[in-house]
Amino acid sequence: MKKGAKISNAVIRRLPRYRRYLGELQKKGVDKISSSEFSKLIGYTASQIRQDLNNFGGFGQQGYGYNVKDLYGEISGILGLKNKYKLVIVGAGNLGHAITNYIGNFRSGFAVEGIFEVNRDMIGRDLNGVPILNNDEMVEFIEHHKIDIGIICTGEESAQEVADKLCFAGVKGIWNFAPVDLELPGHVAVENVHLSDSLYSLVYHINKKDNIITQ
Amino acid sequence: MKKGAKISNAVIRRLPRYRRYLGELQKKGVDKISSSEFSKLIGYTASQIRQDLNNFGGFGQQGYGYNVKDLYGEISGILGLKNKYKLVIVGAGNLGHAITNYIGNFRSGFAVEGIFEVNRDMIGRDLNGVPILNNDEMVEFIEHHKIDIGIICTGEESAQEVADKLCFAGVKGIWNFAPVDLELPGHVAVENVHLSDSLYSLVYHINKKDNIITQ
Repeated sequence: MKKGAKISNAVIRRLPRYRRYLGELQKKGVDKISSSEFSKLIGYTASQIRQDLNNFGGFGQQGYGYNVKDLYGEISGILGLKNKYKLVIVGAGNLGHAITNYIGNFRSGFAVEGIFEVNRDMIGRDLNGVPILNNDEMVEFIEHHKIDIGIICTGEESAQEVADKLCFAGVKGIWNFAPVDLELPGHVAVENVHLSDSLYSLVYHINKKDNIITQ
Repeated sequence: MKKGAKISNAVIRRLPRYRRYLGELQKKGVDKISSSEFSKLIGYTASQIRQDLNNFGGFGQQGYGYNVKDLYGEISGILGLKNKYKLVIVGAGNLGHAITNYIGNFRSGFAVEGIFEVNRDMIGRDLNGVPILNNDEMVEFIEHHKIDIGIICTGEESAQEVADKLCFAGVKGIWNFAPVDLELPGHVAVENVHLSDSLYSLVYHINKKDNIITQ
């Protein structure tokens, strides 16, 4: 990849999708795929695919297409999925529970080390083997275990305060499920999962099925 | 709005975010906001905001800015949030549980009428007052209650089969949390929440904090 090249967020967001489809192809025993076949499968234009992958040096061969396994590996490398990450979850409610299970089902690379909670009835228990700990111990725990990512599964009211603590303790990224846009220092990456934004987009499309929507 | 005008999905995805910020401003008692103030708050350029809102007829007044309450109302109307929607959830696991609670906390407009499950130990119970029903009753229930939206909270393996049933029963839209891209008839809208795509984007940003990322 060209050092310092500007890669748009839109491209980054498509990479996990490419990887997901390439993973499926591998499972089905497919060795290679042309950009036009890949285009049909994934629903982006062939030129979009070529353009996206050119950001990172191409990978395709004229008249051959893409080697599925190699491209999967390359994208995994670009995304940083060949490294391992330590996570904590803040909030042991249903969402925290669901996310703990969800990450537990990943094959490798992501480990939830602890779940932090204010409700004293839950502290000391565990979720699928992950200890539920007192919120007050969060900073020390993150520093000691060198946690990479904090996942916010609390309500809206406490999300910013939790984010401040996570940043102070030294996480590199925050995966935020609370319906607020957090204020964070520039060196901490953030991904928001705003579920209501997604639901409202769906509702728009339900109502506007008669209009032409472009991608 | 111009009849049949092409409105990009990217614009639609920004509308819920505009609405969310306008809602916050209303709570704080703010009556009007200029596009440049709004720009600072929301993180899009002022020209992007004007351009987005022009798709629907503008709403701003030269030298005055936007009336917060009116614009909130207009966007709510565009998204279809002045109507009411009936939902079912398929899958009563932790995620189904989390989504049921999440929608229960919406002020109005969305009602989960039933949750469908294959696990016989759960059928007949309820989640926060919403009945857990046998998967076999899904089609009849959806037809009878005129359900608008089906939410898929099952695993990957059964998601397409569930989607087929939901479409057959007549839902208008599917909110899909399973990590697959569903094949659906053209008249059914879909929104995918691919959590791993979001997590992987975060990981990319953690690793590439030294590169310049554009929006």
